[in-house]
Amino acid sequence: MTKQKETARLFKRSPCPVACTLDILGDKWTLLVVRDLFAGKKTYSEFQNSPESIPTNILADRLKRLAGNGIVEKKPYQKHPVRYEYVLTDKGRDLGAVLQAMVQWGERHIPGSKAQMRPVVD
Amino acid sequence: MTKQKETARLFKRSPCPVACTLDILGDKWTLLVVRDLFAGKKTYSEFQNSPESIPTNILADRLKRLAGNGIVEKKPYQKHPVRYEYVLTDKGRDLGAVLQAMVQWGERHIPGSKAQMRPVVD
Repeated sequence: MTKQKETARLFKRSPCPVACTLDILGDKWTLLVVRDLFAGKKTYSEFQNSPESIPTNILADRLKRLAGNGIVEKKPYQKHPVRYEYVLTDKGRDLGAVLQAMVQWGERHIPGSKAQMRPVVD
Repeated sequence: MTKQKETARLFKRSPCPVACTLDILGDKWTLLVVRDLFAGKKTYSEFQNSPESIPTNILADRLKRLAGNGIVEKKPYQKHPVRYEYVLTDKGRDLGAVLQAMVQWGERHIPGSKAQMRPVVD
């Protein structure tokens, strides 16, 4: 296998960690769900109550992708009917530094922008 | 004007700095262009030569959005025909911390992912 084909097999676009991170998180919604998880939100209705009003189908897709990439863990918290809650894994909590950098950039450069809380970075 | 309407006028989704930052940068390509600018790339052909092969129409759109948000500055560097180069503003260079956090997360959590260079954070 050529090196180029080997790279194509391992990575969607390139081995660059920014590109690989954006392959998972590069959209307008995913990091808002991660932000909400840092804020202690766990359930569909809690995520949907955030001020950005994430559409249900996008929320379902993003939670599935986050779970598939080991960033959140899906746990049943109720039976009959079964209901699930979502919590950050260690890999997910490591995204605190990315969120924190965005909070700092946004607060510095977007007038009026203000965080409600700050992600706790280990 | 109600507070809700005032917020809607100022912000696309909410005053959260993460949401506001993602309104500008939340996609798979924009931060790769910023990464390339940190690496010293300045022209269309340099951006297009990156391993992710950004499509021309997406590159044009993203550079326009980055310029519109004061993150890059567009400068003519040749006449007859006029050609432009793009450089980061101070606001754009402040995104170094966001890139750096993504580099660290990607290198830690995506096996085989490796940065070619690191953004210089002031």
